[in-house]
Amino acid sequence: MLPADLAAYGLRLRAPHALTVENHMGRAVQQLVLDLVRRVDPSLSEALHALSQTKPYAASGLLLPESARPVLGKLAVGDRAWVRVVCLSSEVVAALDRSLERAPAEVEIDRVRWQVESVGRDSAEHPWAGRAALTDLIQHHRAADPPGKLTLEFATPTGFHSGGLNVPLPQPALVWGSLLRQWNDLCPLPLPDDLTPFIAWQVMLNRYRAETQILRFKQGSQQIGFTGQATFAIARRNEQLERSDPALAERLSAQGDELARALGLLAEFAFYCGVGIKTTTGMGMVRAV
Amino acid sequence: MLPADLAAYGLRLRAPHALTVENHMGRAVQQLVLDLVRRVDPSLSEALHALSQTKPYAASGLLLPESARPVLGKLAVGDRAWVRVVCLSSEVVAALDRSLERAPAEVEIDRVRWQVESVGRDSAEHPWAGRAALTDLIQHHRAADPPGKLTLEFATPTGFHSGGLNVPLPQPALVWGSLLRQWNDLCPLPLPDDLTPFIAWQVMLNRYRAETQILRFKQGSQQIGFTGQATFAIARRNEQLERSDPALAERLSAQGDELARALGLLAEFAFYCGVGIKTTTGMGMVRAV
Repeated sequence: MLPADLAAYGLRLRAPHALTVENHMGRAVQQLVLDLVRRVDPSLSEALHALSQTKPYAASGLLLPESARPVLGKLAVGDRAWVRVVCLSSEVVAALDRSLERAPAEVEIDRVRWQVESVGRDSAEHPWAGRAALTDLIQHHRAADPPGKLTLEFATPTGFHSGGLNVPLPQPALVWGSLLRQWNDLCPLPLPDDLTPFIAWQVMLNRYRAETQILRFKQGSQQIGFTGQATFAIARRNEQLERSDPALAERLSAQGDELARALGLLAEFAFYCGVGIKTTTGMGMVRAV
Repeated sequence: MLPADLAAYGLRLRAPHALTVENHMGRAVQQLVLDLVRRVDPSLSEALHALSQTKPYAASGLLLPESARPVLGKLAVGDRAWVRVVCLSSEVVAALDRSLERAPAEVEIDRVRWQVESVGRDSAEHPWAGRAALTDLIQHHRAADPPGKLTLEFATPTGFHSGGLNVPLPQPALVWGSLLRQWNDLCPLPLPDDLTPFIAWQVMLNRYRAETQILRFKQGSQQIGFTGQATFAIARRNEQLERSDPALAERLSAQGDELARALGLLAEFAFYCGVGIKTTTGMGMVRAV
């Protein structure tokens, strides 16, 4: 495998015996990520566990085959499921590459030792797998046509915290703000300073279909998020901004293509980092479509 | 009919001949409202037409039978449709009551003279008809249990303008802010001053299903809105507010029941006034469910 800064693995699993899944397994899969890292690098696993800022990994829940819906209820021996593990730094990618170099025979999720059927490392092997180097990503988008709109599929429940409340809506400032914040926290190459006002003034939702879904975790907590699909259109101008702050409007206009390309880059980054709260425990699994 | 401050009429219609409807008929139904007023009070009709602030009426598009979906495409002679006309002041209600005292044989919509099958004046006659006196509404809600949550059905495309952009999302501050603004513009009895911060800090969306829909008007313009259903939960407290502005948090807590009752009142008012932009041409037709 070539070195990469971002990598998503899809592990196809089989139930080792009959069992009942009663809660969302996001926290158990998060633990699995730390276990997989610990096998090859115990101190990195400790460091990841202790991190309080944006974590350089993401995890899914335990999901139904060929779906992003959670496994819930009774399973028979041999029933299939899958989990996704995402690494968001070259160090964590290197650890997972070593840990998964030979597919393990089994992995433990919430004290059940699931049989590992396959480990998908790229999109040919699993639709939610892939890997990328940041420099390649950036070069690709620098040369691309600036997008006029971008569509994201919110495959698992996605939500935000804003003003002390949960917000389970594809609000442009929250969606793109989450991606930008993660980029700034995890990636060494800065995006244009004016991306935040550009998102606020020139990115609008013009098509979507969304509905809320509740995830119930083992500890009794629950989280509300939305799933669905949303198309964000990049406006060429905002007349209200032109009146209220002509200097900013002028700056955004002059950088329009560059800012739109940066959003295209964030849309691709979304496949790895996810969007919104609790992407380490299965929420906010997203891809550009 | 008893005098009322708010009244919604549902007019069931039949096509007088074969025809094709190519655009959203919201503007034609708006014209019908003004025509119905003009029959009995030409100067009021002129005044309504000239008003630039919140207008004391609302109108639907031309809708399919037993539905809030717009009529589009080919119709045969005798095919059914319906329109809704809403009056939001006692003066306009009085005019429409007189104009519709005997159901007219036909009404003109976009130069087609539709046959009038019936005029529904209350919910027994039509599910989207009804009437109310403001003092009754207020007394009823003053005595009611404070609601813990409120669900609105967005039957026709609903949208907002915010920050120079269209926002086709059930954002609590936009939905309830629209209702509050209309109440303040149209109703003489003020609601509590702290309702705006209460909406911002303690009303959250906790269930919804929504999707965008585009309305194409005759003049070539189009509008995006969402349809669906949304449940807004009234939080008892907001910990972030308690930290950032303890005095406001304390005020909102002390008035919690009263503020929740005011939202219940606005939810009932929504049946008449609708929500968001262009309620005079068929957008934002809403009811509490």
